[in-house]
Order: sequence, then structure tokens, then C-alpha cells
Amino acid sequence: MRVGAFFQKNKCHFNVWAPFKNSVNLRLNGKDVPMKKIDTEYWSVSLPLKGEEKYYYNVDGKIRPDPASKFQPEGVHGPSQVINDNFSWEDKKWKAPKLRELIIYELHVGTFTKEGTFKAIISKLEYLKKIGINAIEIMPVAQFPGDRNWGYDGVYPFAVQNSYGTPKDFKALVNECHKKGIAVILDVVYNHLGPEGNYFRDFGPYFTDKYKTPWGCALNFDDSYSDGVRNYFINNALYWLEEFHIDGLRLDAVQTIFDTSARPFLQELAEIVEKRYPNKYLIAESNLNKSSFIKSRRAGGYGLDAEWLDDFHHSLHAYITDEKHGYYIDYGKLKQIAKCINKGHVYDGIYSMSRKCTYGDSSGNLDKEKFVVFIQNHDQVGNRVVGERLSKLVDFAGLKTSAGLMLCSPFVPLLFMGEEYGETTPFFYFTNHSDKELGKAVKEGRKNEFKEFDWKEEPPDPQSHKTFNRSKLDWKKINNEKQKKMLEFYKDLIRLRKNKKFGGENKTKATSYENKGLITISYGSGVFVVFNLGEQSTEFYLKGNYRKIFDSEDEKYNGRGSDCPKIIKNAKNIKFQKRSFIVFERRGEYFE
Amino acid sequence: MRVGAFFQKNKCHFNVWAPFKNSVNLRLNGKDVPMKKIDTEYWSVSLPLKGEEKYYYNVDGKIRPDPASKFQPEGVHGPSQVINDNFSWEDKKWKAPKLRELIIYELHVGTFTKEGTFKAIISKLEYLKKIGINAIEIMPVAQFPGDRNWGYDGVYPFAVQNSYGTPKDFKALVNECHKKGIAVILDVVYNHLGPEGNYFRDFGPYFTDKYKTPWGCALNFDDSYSDGVRNYFINNALYWLEEFHIDGLRLDAVQTIFDTSARPFLQELAEIVEKRYPNKYLIAESNLNKSSFIKSRRAGGYGLDAEWLDDFHHSLHAYITDEKHGYYIDYGKLKQIAKCINKGHVYDGIYSMSRKCTYGDSSGNLDKEKFVVFIQNHDQVGNRVVGERLSKLVDFAGLKTSAGLMLCSPFVPLLFMGEEYGETTPFFYFTNHSDKELGKAVKEGRKNEFKEFDWKEEPPDPQSHKTFNRSKLDWKKINNEKQKKMLEFYKDLIRLRKNKKFGGENKTKATSYENKGLITISYGSGVFVVFNLGEQSTEFYLKGNYRKIFDSEDEKYNGRGSDCPKIIKNAKNIKFQKRSFIVFERRGEYFE
Repeated sequence: MRVGAFFQKNKCHFNVWAPFKNSVNLRLNGKDVPMKKIDTEYWSVSLPLKGEEKYYYNVDGKIRPDPASKFQPEGVHGPSQVINDNFSWEDKKWKAPKLRELIIYELHVGTFTKEGTFKAIISKLEYLKKIGINAIEIMPVAQFPGDRNWGYDGVYPFAVQNSYGTPKDFKALVNECHKKGIAVILDVVYNHLGPEGNYFRDFGPYFTDKYKTPWGCALNFDDSYSDGVRNYFINNALYWLEEFHIDGLRLDAVQTIFDTSARPFLQELAEIVEKRYPNKYLIAESNLNKSSFIKSRRAGGYGLDAEWLDDFHHSLHAYITDEKHGYYIDYGKLKQIAKCINKGHVYDGIYSMSRKCTYGDSSGNLDKEKFVVFIQNHDQVGNRVVGERLSKLVDFAGLKTSAGLMLCSPFVPLLFMGEEYGETTPFFYFTNHSDKELGKAVKEGRKNEFKEFDWKEEPPDPQSHKTFNRSKLDWKKINNEKQKKMLEFYKDLIRLRKNKKFGGENKTKATSYENKGLITISYGSGVFVVFNLGEQSTEFYLKGNYRKIFDSEDEKYNGRGSDCPKIIKNAKNIKFQKRSFIVFERRGEYFE
Repeated sequence: MRVGAFFQKNKCHFNVWAPFKNSVNLRLNGKDVPMKKIDTEYWSVSLPLKGEEKYYYNVDGKIRPDPASKFQPEGVHGPSQVINDNFSWEDKKWKAPKLRELIIYELHVGTFTKEGTFKAIISKLEYLKKIGINAIEIMPVAQFPGDRNWGYDGVYPFAVQNSYGTPKDFKALVNECHKKGIAVILDVVYNHLGPEGNYFRDFGPYFTDKYKTPWGCALNFDDSYSDGVRNYFINNALYWLEEFHIDGLRLDAVQTIFDTSARPFLQELAEIVEKRYPNKYLIAESNLNKSSFIKSRRAGGYGLDAEWLDDFHHSLHAYITDEKHGYYIDYGKLKQIAKCINKGHVYDGIYSMSRKCTYGDSSGNLDKEKFVVFIQNHDQVGNRVVGERLSKLVDFAGLKTSAGLMLCSPFVPLLFMGEEYGETTPFFYFTNHSDKELGKAVKEGRKNEFKEFDWKEEPPDPQSHKTFNRSKLDWKKINNEKQKKMLEFYKDLIRLRKNKKFGGENKTKATSYENKGLITISYGSGVFVVFNLGEQSTEFYLKGNYRKIFDSEDEKYNGRGSDCPKIIKNAKNIKFQKRSFIVFERRGEYFE
């Protein structure tokens, strides 16, 4: 059942799920238009409309916005708006890259540009394209309270945030992306709905008290009336994929989509999307290291396309920063990085100190393209006490070597906006709840979350406008000499990655040399990469004939210079500066 | 880690899981013996003991029985007792029947015999053997509050109920069963712990508030410290299988074992049990119609051996009784019975009116031996307002035909104690909580549960001793002429089932004839069964050559006589009395 307001045959149809209600009316221009109960759980009415009309529902006497509203021009508490924008798509020939080819760039609409709008993003697309980015992943755009939020407090999953622009503006952005060869992945939240402006309970049993999420009641995916809830979210997924030409969805924190049913919601979603859009991607963020999310359905899995691989971030981050707080206590060994590259999950059924229980299962037999990796992302930066990016924690060489490991991995890399030029501006957690009590609770909650850390600086007030403004990228920096060189570094390495087809390569073999701080990755194609992640310079004996094809110590990348020759015949002992890496290509015995 | 008190090398070892506690002592003869923390989460001490000693733990000043107590001679609030019974097993040559060969007999220790003890059951084993029963399934025996309870309020999963006998008595029962060729399946409850005498929170985080069960907090199988909880229950399973020679476990209500981890507890249990005891069975009671519980692990399932197939009971019960209340609203069509026999799950991803959501998944490709079926069980009888058995709801012919469908099915049949002679005594829900408030709550809760039903009689007070006594089998009835004939019927049909190897047969094909009230089942072996479940006599045209091998209308089964000949040549129109069935065997063209 299609939900929300949509145009068909010159009429606007309104469908709303309200299984228990005695009367549901459409409130239009201050007048109630009676709706008819259809299909036992839905209410419906059709009217000739133009589009742009504002409306509410009158649900047993309560005047409420549409849970499937496509636009909330006055915010979460205001009326819903009918959308009939007749957008002229120009992406008929568009074909998204394959999952394994993706270079994803995660961005937050509000802080990516000064303006903080969909429109403003368009001006940056040429820049992204030039770096080699072929997919942007947009943090949630569903209408949230106020005008600044990471997006995970969204309460209207079908409505784009009014402070970001209109649905048409969002379509225009996708359209421009496709024209530039850039896919668009949208971060969607199907595990909870935000606390403010949440009128869902006035319509139907969207929630269950069987399970608890960190953000309150869980959504009802497996109890009585769950068909209506599932239908709502499947409609949502299809709405973005279909009407906005979105190429893939990033499913937020799937571990809190509680569902014990025989055919879990995520499996149903995967089946439906795969059938209709076999080339679109569904990528789960999961903190369970549970391979059944991404296993094929034939192998008893849900059949999602990929998952975020936190183990990659954590093992690299803990090693390179030497941080030990929180979950980093579980990481810090070089061999964990090698295990991750070889097998995906580092925690594959072993005890985790931070979780205080056995954690994860083996993902060693899964395709490498099923894992998205990153050295930074909104969570890993923004959930630090003072929101420091990796650029504030390690030096330039360390930053490059971390990025090198990500970009030379067989996994799908995801960059966090700004990292490509070594942005140093913090990315804070920010909100703008109009509910003052809630605002206070968020502030206090945030402080409590950081209790275990040894603050050097007070965490900034999430509700303050300043906190938001301080999180915006500082694009002026890009003209600095060092930043320019970092950009050059990313650009060249991405080009190399694409040429050598690292993405999804399943014959990679990583080896760690704990004492030396070295990690090597060999590719089936003959590419061989040596990383010195350690803080000492060291040597590696390279056996055979090689050509050097990338050197992080090259001066064009602000490097310290390297004495490794371009051509290595027979064998050679190569010196590696601390935190550096070189990409080699194996050659036949008699080359040149 | 082994938990509880156990003897090894002339010493009694005490291990208890108490990860957060500052001090844990063993309280023995009124004195505290200090325990040492081992393995970070456990406390341990070893002493030379004789056995039979009573003890408590002193946990940070609280004097508590052992959560892994092996005996509670004075009930749930009293001391635990060390057990060193040196039982002499006489079942060395015992080999349990295969799953597909089982004829299971569910019994409740307290009401199966007048005495209500393990010992008293032994005197009935010869009787059960003669009927053809080769497995008894014993409702939970874990120590519960008071001296009468179904067993699902147990709080000491390792301790046999003191009013049933001692651990040695229970071993003696298993020993005698094995000597008679009868396997023993034990009903174990791993989804919650009873409300009274529950001191688990004083030891460690056994519970989680992430999930809710109908009986309170869920057990912590996937959160911090869940390893200790898992270890406790896996110890429990192995304790029964190993020290009591139990042949299989029936896992109560697995839908409330909430666990989102990558390797769920039930999968871990199945892996461990399969490795150590490949011939023992793990049978799940599930109300999810979710085939992953019983799918092999290679196919992405948990690898449990079998599940209770409620759909079989419900479709048959609704058809034969015409009841429509509660979940029976989902059933009542003959074709559902046929679908069940062919595919297992009737609700295999279709909408259920009673659940008000889509329910189940397909189990059509799973082996038939993976389903346990019944026409009565403790729940289906005892959870009725006045606990009527099927014998009170349908006539003698209906009872036989229902049993016939179960025993001629390819699934594993389970009889509920007394059904083999058509017992008419009710089986009520009964408890004996000493906590008066709890007793009152149980009584009121019970009434509320039945609110939707149209009572003819007040549901009896669960706390009353009378309710318990009225639930005991009335063995005198067995001498009645009719009861004797029912017994004969079960015996003969079970013998036929074994001879013809119906159990686990995967080539069965059931067909329904809705207008006639007929169901037929054909077996790969050439057996063909025609059931008239309808309330009218009807005819069925049997094509080919057949020999009649069983007729429910035979006078020795108190039948009304049948005009179906023993030999059918070429073809014949056969008359079926209402609620009757005949088993045929196909023969070659020229036989006799």
C-alpha cells in the first residue's frame, strides 16, 4: 500500500495507516474532508489538487501532520505539504558504478558548505569528480526538529529537511551528481524516530515495548500490526530509490532494528529492492560483526550488499594514535589490521574487553566488496569529546599512511568530507531542539557519555548555534600548500586504485611484521604494497623484480623524499621512513 | 567453566559466576570458607567433602542458595545440597532411537501418577513400552516454588524438584527407561527464570532490560557479561545429557530467547551438543514458524534437530472442533491440514488474523522428521479455560481419526499423557507460590488471559491444591471397555507406523477434498491413507489394487463396522463413515 500524498491521473491521493482509529479526515484549508477506510488498516481519499497545498490529518479529533509527509515547510510541528514538482530528470543514461568500484564521500548537508543546502553542494561536484569520488553518501535528510542536526533525530522519513531545501532541490542535486558520474547514497534511519515532533503514536502502533533502543522505544517490525510499519519503511526506501533516483541506502545502526520474525524486515527490504533495482546498493551500519546481514539469502543471510567495517577503523586508529579508551582497548595490534584485511571481521567470535562478551562471527569467506571502510566518519570524529579529526591526532605522514591503507585495501573506501585535503576543523555533535527540556537532556546526556574520558576541553553544548557553525568545513584552507598536496595525494592514489582495480579484489593477502611496524598487502594482479605504520623508520627486503608505482614520501605529497628507486631488479632492501608506504608492481624476470 | 558443586579427585569443587562481587564465601555448617576469584568472573574453592552437605554462598554479605544448585531439599528459599550419589548406570548398551523413529509421550511428573514422583513413573514404563512408546518427554523438573507447578516457574535449572524425588531418583528413572528401550527427553526452560526464589541478580547480570518476555526480564544472552550466562545454560544442557543420560532436550518457547548476536546462544548450544553427542536431540518449541531454528548451519540456520509444529495441531483442532476463538480463527480449512502435511508451516509468510501480521516462512524443503506434531499437549489442554482434553470436545470416532492423522503423518508424533486411553480428566494450570501476592497475581492473570473467551465455567484457582489433584490421571478408567479399545487402537496404529516407517518419510503427498471432508496421504512406499475428517459419511474412489491394512471402524477399536473389503482389485468406490480412516497398501497388478 502506497502511503502519503501522491498524484495519479490528475488527482492527489492520500493514504494513511491508522488501523484503530474511528475517524480520519483530511484537513485542507481549515476544512475536514472525510477519508474512507480501505484494506482494513488504511484510510484514503482522492481529490483534484494542484500541488503545494498544505494539509493535516484529523485523527479522532487530533490535528496532526502526515507521518509520510513529503515536505514540512514549517518544520516538524507544522502542516505537511503536497508535492507535485514534475522534475525533469536528465540522467536517463546514468548507470551507477558497481559496488566494488565505489569511492564514497560522506557528507553532512548542513556543514559541507557555508550555505548548508542541497543547492550549494552542486557547486562542489566538479571538485569531487576531479578527486575521483564517484559516490556521495549524504547523512540523513529526513525532517528533524530545528535547523541543525546530524539527521538521526529525523521524524518525517519521507520529507527532506526544510532548511536544506525542497524535494525538488534534492532531486536537482541527484540529477547533477548523475550528470557528473557520481552516485548518491542516502543514509536512512529505520531503527527509531526522533523524539521531537513524533506524532506517530497518534496514528498507529509504530512502536513496540518488547525491545529498547538507546533512543527509546523500538519500531514495531515483528509484532501485531507490524505489516503496516514494514510497509511504511519499504515505501520509504522505494520512494528515495524511485522518485529521487537515489543509488543506494546506508541503513543506520541495524543492530537496533529488533525483529525475531521468520522473514525479518531487513531481509524483506533486501528482497524487494534487489528485485526492483538489482543495481542499487543496500549498505548496513552494524555493530554486531554478524555476517548474516550481508550473506546471500541462499546461504541463509539477509542479502544486504555491504556493511560498514568498524574493525578496520578501530584497529588502524588504535595502532596509529595509541588511544586506549572506550572500544579502542580491544585494538592496537598490527596483526589485527592484517587479519581485518584478510578476513573482514577482526572480532569473529572472540572475547571483546570493551563489550565484555564474545563478539562477532567469521566473515572470511565473504567478498571483499561487501565491506565499507574508513579512517574517519561522522561518528568516529563527531563522537569524540571535542570532535577532532584524525588530522589533529596524527601527523601529515600518519594521515597519508592511514589513507593509503584504506585506499589500497580490497574493501570499499569511504572518505569523510574534508579529509581529502586534511581538514582540521572539528566536527561536533549538534542539535536544535525547540523542546527546552529535551535540549537540556541532550546536553547532559552528551556529558555523561563522555564521563569515562579524560577531558582536556569541555565538550561543546550541542544545542548552541556556535557548535554547529564551528563544524562547517573551512574551504579556504584548500589553498594552503600542505592541503593542496594532501589533495594531490588522494587524487593520485584514487586514480591508482581505480587503474589497478583494488576494489573487491579477493586474492589479497596481508601480512604484519609486528616488530617492524610493517604491513604488506599483495594483490593477485602482482601489486605489492608495503606500509610502515610504525614510528620508526625500518627496512623491508623486497625479493624479485618490481617497479615502484606510488610513493607516499614523494615531494609532491609533501613527503620527506625516499631513496627507493623506480625499478628494483632481483631484490633490494628498501628503507621505509616512519609512517610511509610504497606501492610496487611485480614484473617478469627480464623486463626492460 | 563448570559451575555448581561437583566432585573431582576426592574433593568437592565449588564454582560460581559472580563477576562484580567483592567477596564470595562458601557458607558451610554456619561458617564462611573464603573463595578465590578465578578467570576474572568466577569464584572457586575446593574442599574434601562426603556429599549430602548443605551450603549457601555468602555474596557480599547476602546468604544465598547456589544458582547452579543440584538439589534444594528444602525448596527454593533453602540451602543447596552437594550431590555425590555414585549412581550405578546399567544402560551401557543403550542406543536411543533415531529422531524419525520416535513416538514421544509427554508427561508431567506431578500428575502422571497418584504419587507424583519420579519413582512412581517407573511402574508405568512397561505399560508405555507395550503401547509402543519409545520416548518420554518430561515437563520441566527444575526446582520450583511449592510442591506443584507445571515446571515453567523453575528457578534452579540444575536441581530436580524436591517433591518429585532426588537427583538419584531421577537417574534411576532414566536408567529404567533405557533398560526398557525408552528414550528420555527433558523439557528445559532457557528463556526466563521463575519469579519466586529467584536470587540470580545477587550473583551477576543474568538478565537484560533490553528485551521483555511475557514472564518478565529476558535472560542476557547477547549483552555485556553474556558469556557467563551462556556458560551457565550450556553447562545445564550438558549436565542433563551427561550426568543424567538424558537423550534430548525440548527447549521451551525459544521465541523469547532474545539474542541478536552473531552467533546466537541456540546456535552455540546446537554446535556444542552436536559435537559431543551427535545422536542426542534438541527440539525447539517456537511460535515463530521460523525455519532458521532447524535449518542446518550450512544453510545459515541454527542446526537444532526439530521444532514443535503448532500448525498441525491448530489446523486439525479447528477443523475437527469447529472452534474459532483465539488463534483458531486462523485455521479451520481442510486444505491447511494438507498443506501442513506437505510443507510443515501452514503460515509460511502469509497474513495471520490472530497475530495481525504476516507470519512464518516456508519449511517445505526441510525433512519431515524435523517437526514434532500432537493433537494434544500440556499447553493445548491446560491453557483452555477449564482444561478440557480433546476427548471432551469430539466423539470417540473424531478422537481416533485425529490420532490417526498424527500417527500416519510423516512427522514425529507426541502424545500427551492419558490420550492413549482417551483420558477425560482435565489438565489445569496449577501453581503453589508461597509468596501470597504472587499467588494472587497468577490467579488474576489467568482470568485476564481468558477474558476473550465465553466462559461456561469459572477457571479454577491455580493456587488451589484441588486444581492440582483434579489434574491427575485417573488410571482406573483404563479398565473401561471403551478406554481399553482406544488403547488397542493406539497400540496397533503405532505398530503399523513403525512397520511402515512413516516417520520422516519425505515422499508423502497429502491431498484435501474440501467438499467431502477428505484428506488422503500417499507414501512413497505405496501406503495410502484416506481420512474422512468430515461430519458426513462419504465415498472415495480408490483406483488400482490395494490391501486394507488398518480400519478405524474395526469393532476392536469400538468402531461402527465398515464395508470396505480387505482386498481391492482394480478399483472400488469405498464408503467412509463420518470421522473414520483406512490405511491401504498398494499392490502389483497380479497380486493374489
